Amino acid sequence: MKALVYHGPGKRAWEERPRPALKEPGDAVVRIAKTTICGTDLHILKGDVATVAEGRILGHEGVGVVEEVGPAVSAFKKGDRVLISCITADGRCEACRKGMYSHCAHGGWILGHTIDGTQAEYVRIPHADTSLYAVPPGADEEALVMLSDVLPTGFECGVLNGAVKPGDTVAIVGAGPIGLAVLLTARFYSPAEIVMVDVDPNRLEVARRLGATQVVSSADGKAAERVLALTGGRGVDVAVEAVGVPATFDLCQQVVAAGGHLANVGVHGKPVSLQLERLWAHNVTLTTRLVDTVSTPMLLKTVLSGKLAPLQLVTHRFPLGRIDEAYETFGHAARERALKVLLLAG
Amino acid sequence: MKALVYHGPGKRAWEERPRPALKEPGDAVVRIAKTTICGTDLHILKGDVATVAEGRILGHEGVGVVEEVGPAVSAFKKGDRVLISCITADGRCEACRKGMYSHCAHGGWILGHTIDGTQAEYVRIPHADTSLYAVPPGADEEALVMLSDVLPTGFECGVLNGAVKPGDTVAIVGAGPIGLAVLLTARFYSPAEIVMVDVDPNRLEVARRLGATQVVSSADGKAAERVLALTGGRGVDVAVEAVGVPATFDLCQQVVAAGGHLANVGVHGKPVSLQLERLWAHNVTLTTRLVDTVSTPMLLKTVLSGKLAPLQLVTHRFPLGRIDEAYETFGHAARERALKVLLLAG
Repeated sequence: MKALVYHGPGKRAWEERPRPALKEPGDAVVRIAKTTICGTDLHILKGDVATVAEGRILGHEGVGVVEEVGPAVSAFKKGDRVLISCITADGRCEACRKGMYSHCAHGGWILGHTIDGTQAEYVRIPHADTSLYAVPPGADEEALVMLSDVLPTGFECGVLNGAVKPGDTVAIVGAGPIGLAVLLTARFYSPAEIVMVDVDPNRLEVARRLGATQVVSSADGKAAERVLALTGGRGVDVAVEAVGVPATFDLCQQVVAAGGHLANVGVHGKPVSLQLERLWAHNVTLTTRLVDTVSTPMLLKTVLSGKLAPLQLVTHRFPLGRIDEAYETFGHAARERALKVLLLAG
Repeated sequence: MKALVYHGPGKRAWEERPRPALKEPGDAVVRIAKTTICGTDLHILKGDVATVAEGRILGHEGVGVVEEVGPAVSAFKKGDRVLISCITADGRCEACRKGMYSHCAHGGWILGHTIDGTQAEYVRIPHADTSLYAVPPGADEEALVMLSDVLPTGFECGVLNGAVKPGDTVAIVGAGPIGLAVLLTARFYSPAEIVMVDVDPNRLEVARRLGATQVVSSADGKAAERVLALTGGRGVDVAVEAVGVPATFDLCQQVVAAGGHLANVGVHGKPVSLQLERLWAHNVTLTTRLVDTVSTPMLLKTVLSGKLAPLQLVTHRFPLGRIDEAYETFGHAARERALKVLLLAG
């Protein structure tokens, strides 16, 4: 089969690889119908994620068709159409029994990380019963690809951890696909204001179209003053960090109100300076989270009912065989005005 | 009257000052019966708290007798015995209506900070109806002084914010009065293990007597390894920072388990380095809080029912007129084996 393989910092190739086989009784092999590229894949390609070995097939998102299942799999059979969760969960370890699938003792984020991933014609999914979801009849599979990672991540790490409530003022720092996923799912809870902050005017325009009530450019380094001015100096009830660098974290800690929540969603490569000399008395709650995908069943319902329209996040489509072009497009997201880039198998 | 006055970094004097009078209709003047010294008073005396002006009477804890009330005060009258909350609250601003009294628009921590405090023969208490508590008949007033600040602080900022649950493993870093208040009130929720960490063997011994199931010395800088070893490498469900320096914060972030809580209680004078490059995916909740004293009514009940024995925190007693000796004792807490030092008016 063909697969997108990581060959060390800066190097990837769409090349021939052996088709995956069942290894454990709980495995399924899935033929990929649709997949996409995540910002994390770009981090890996830059060499930022030391736990990814050379030779790894990338990708942790997708929708496909079950090709084969092991004898322990009972929820799925050959021919079933399935949504692949970015989090693989055995469903039985202590972390899983608490619903914290991200820290599964035999899973977590392993696809396209410590085992081969979904940017390929076929993928092996361990613990298939608790790592796949059935595609509901009539569902738009392109929309469902957004439920592998980007929407549950925005929702769980941003909206649920940020405890967005009716009437709140929410600032989302970073209007990439993840920040926009926070925006779309924050709207479930009827906040009064959603303030989107980004350097890119095009992304801010998209945010406005998707429901941001205010947009703030951070291009000149004065975004904190502007966000504070929008709230009469009080600060925001919820600040969501959806970039993953010290400057955007810092912006969040500057604008969060007393009693507010700072929900970190971004993947950080460095420590940040936490202003405890001021925040110790500020009654703030700061959260971090690797998505657990516990909200996927709920998000599926919101998509089916039309409450959530994930295709708003999709800007480009390529055949799977042209994944190199897709990486070029997604890798120059500002220039290409790219959000999520879909890859469609033949 | 006599009062303990701050005269700039390193300088205090027990000296004659005018007796406070009513200024606003909601004020009460209280004759102090018992007060105490807080670690924060030592910080002020070091010059660490820039918002304290020279000439300020220190102190934000105490029990006394109402001497006089303004016309708007309805809950208290002359002669009532009262517990003074360290937090003054108008009860009607937005923060107060949310129960976040610490951020009252016309109060918060102001006693012995931006207005004159309780280390004096008399004190003026603004918003008396919502800043004093009636001393219940038969209550031990020495015990109640521990409810002005230290016990609600340990309980709200450490135990409630840390979300201590039955079966949890809790690490408390810092076995001073606040850390011990966390220990005493964490026991309400039946954690499986309470691990106390401090540099001082005497304080660790006290912690053991008060219910710590494990004690760990941090004198050699290897406390994190020891706490992790006690939990099989997994880390603790709740880590409470009760010191207020970067090293103890760092210890907490090293030992908190995935999915755990890091509750900051310490008063910090400097930023800390937050290891987001590791913690972004660790599903942790970090909280900060200036005590709201919303739990005081509950804590009063636990004292009256004998569930909580605050006098365990009191090691020394002095007549109010010998407050200089009390400061010397409390200022050399390790040498004097001092925890809370009570000052008793004649």
